[in-house]
Amino acid sequence: MQDNNHLSNEEVLTLGKYDLIAELSKGFHVENGSTVVGIGDDAAVTAPASENVASASRLFMENVHFDLTYVPLRHLGYKVAAITFSDLLAMNAVPTQLSVNMAISNRFDMKAVQELLDGVATCCENVHADVVGLDLMTSRRDLIISVSANGECEPALLTKRAGASENELLCVSGDFAAAYAGLLLLEREKKVFEVNPDVQPDFTGKDYLLSRQLRPEPRLDIVEALRREELVPTAMVNVADGLAAAMMQICRASQKGAVLFEERIPMTELTFNTLKSLDIVHTVAALNGGDDYELMFTVKQADFEKIKNVPNVSIVGYIKEKEYGCQLITSDNHQIEVKAQGFSKMRAHE
Amino acid sequence: MQDNNHLSNEEVLTLGKYDLIAELSKGFHVENGSTVVGIGDDAAVTAPASENVASASRLFMENVHFDLTYVPLRHLGYKVAAITFSDLLAMNAVPTQLSVNMAISNRFDMKAVQELLDGVATCCENVHADVVGLDLMTSRRDLIISVSANGECEPALLTKRAGASENELLCVSGDFAAAYAGLLLLEREKKVFEVNPDVQPDFTGKDYLLSRQLRPEPRLDIVEALRREELVPTAMVNVADGLAAAMMQICRASQKGAVLFEERIPMTELTFNTLKSLDIVHTVAALNGGDDYELMFTVKQADFEKIKNVPNVSIVGYIKEKEYGCQLITSDNHQIEVKAQGFSKMRAHE
Repeated sequence: MQDNNHLSNEEVLTLGKYDLIAELSKGFHVENGSTVVGIGDDAAVTAPASENVASASRLFMENVHFDLTYVPLRHLGYKVAAITFSDLLAMNAVPTQLSVNMAISNRFDMKAVQELLDGVATCCENVHADVVGLDLMTSRRDLIISVSANGECEPALLTKRAGASENELLCVSGDFAAAYAGLLLLEREKKVFEVNPDVQPDFTGKDYLLSRQLRPEPRLDIVEALRREELVPTAMVNVADGLAAAMMQICRASQKGAVLFEERIPMTELTFNTLKSLDIVHTVAALNGGDDYELMFTVKQADFEKIKNVPNVSIVGYIKEKEYGCQLITSDNHQIEVKAQGFSKMRAHE
Repeated sequence: MQDNNHLSNEEVLTLGKYDLIAELSKGFHVENGSTVVGIGDDAAVTAPASENVASASRLFMENVHFDLTYVPLRHLGYKVAAITFSDLLAMNAVPTQLSVNMAISNRFDMKAVQELLDGVATCCENVHADVVGLDLMTSRRDLIISVSANGECEPALLTKRAGASENELLCVSGDFAAAYAGLLLLEREKKVFEVNPDVQPDFTGKDYLLSRQLRPEPRLDIVEALRREELVPTAMVNVADGLAAAMMQICRASQKGAVLFEERIPMTELTFNTLKSLDIVHTVAALNGGDDYELMFTVKQADFEKIKNVPNVSIVGYIKEKEYGCQLITSDNHQIEVKAQGFSKMRAHE
């Protein structure tokens, strides 16, 4: 978005809703060749370049999904777009368009709305997607953001959660628990601030953890690298709620089991040390922490040489028969059943 | 959705979120041939049969967009789907897929969620669209529903708000102000109920008005009839906020003016008499009442014979030069400038 496009609140008062949306949309540029109709009509229209279209939508609510005490609006805009794109990338699709609807209470001025949209626009630019929909409405109190996005995917590249077979390699992009460590730091400083508002938070040396929490990156680079290597994963999932849930999602959909090696879980030294200083078991944080938005996927053993050429990917385990379940092998060689919030025990009829 | 698929609250407590979504999704059947991946993966995937894909998304908030005091959840589910489909139909696109995300507070039990989803499913079945996405999350208080939908459209049929030319006929589907009259009745009975909860509301003979407010129908029949007549409108808009806003949306996008004849505005006798009994000027209700979800569109004069073959369509005016603005010609032959909430005065740079 352009920076010279700031509306004063006075201007906003003289504008109707349709004019306001038109003003806020001025900074959005249609750059993706597949966009036919963008903001300003009843619906967006695209001419997808691929045979398949992937669609993802997410709903984000203040004080449930984000806390504006410490989340800058620009980062929040970036994050909600990144998370929605991550869902498309997990299908091995490439994001092309995004729409955003926001319900805003009178706590927010137009500068705030524009900062949030700047963040959305920056994330879209980074993955070469267009903002094609924008609507604003009144909220009684909380800020509510709804994001939907489309992406392109050829049928031969489409990767579902189902599709993993026994002995295939279990891979992940990036590193884990950094976003969770960042969240813990932010929550700790919030508590300090609530007691004494004069204390300035000290995040020296923790930038990486904060950025992983506040401004996660959609892993388009991984999907592009896989395409360069002509490597199509057999199954893939967005790691949104920790490694445990992701692993169980692939296993359940594929009707398989899997083994995960604790010592193979990628984690930065900074994350490890920060979690240690906070008395958090680092592997628990990686398994259940969440907000990583990395990709977990499975590849055939025959693709071992190819996967080595994809940067920022680690092999963390492999697929087993269904009856094995999901197991963690700890660094001291113990076997522990992997559990995740949101999953009940497998039931009889499954 | 199947009716034999009711979860008790006890069952819900023993289910994780992923199981719960799986249970609630059991009643959704994939029937549209273009659906490749439905609920249960990171994103939905479709193989559109048309070159263009239309995408619409809407955010609905309790006590802003709906009042659960008098809106049955099944009707609410139907309505949020119908409204979102209306946005696609207004592009001359045919709905194919829909996703719904809901934030629910602990005021709601699972039966309530299932009723709402039953309504969504019924509306989808009526337009032969599939429910391909479902997510549930916690809300602190209000029910919040986010709906996004995709539809198919060939480029030659695509109809934007822009495209109307001078002397073209201004047409609308259905009749107007019935939904607004229904809203006024419901609001009146709510006030009576608040004073005396023992009074039963009396809506005898008002069924049509209530159904237009509570359970609007997406006008797929109009889009299909236009296709049968091989008639492509030059411009089209979803009449969501009254005739005035719709007219101004077409005129502004097309850089044209328009004239609307009061006596041509279609309205049932029931609507007219009910508004009269409520001391509401019926034309004001049609212009600014909202919630009609009818289509307004323009056709070439040469298509006059064809448009007569499309059922439930009225010619209400015609397109004029931009300088004329948007004018209403009243039944007693006065000319009044049409104004709509959400629009400011046209500004110098337009």
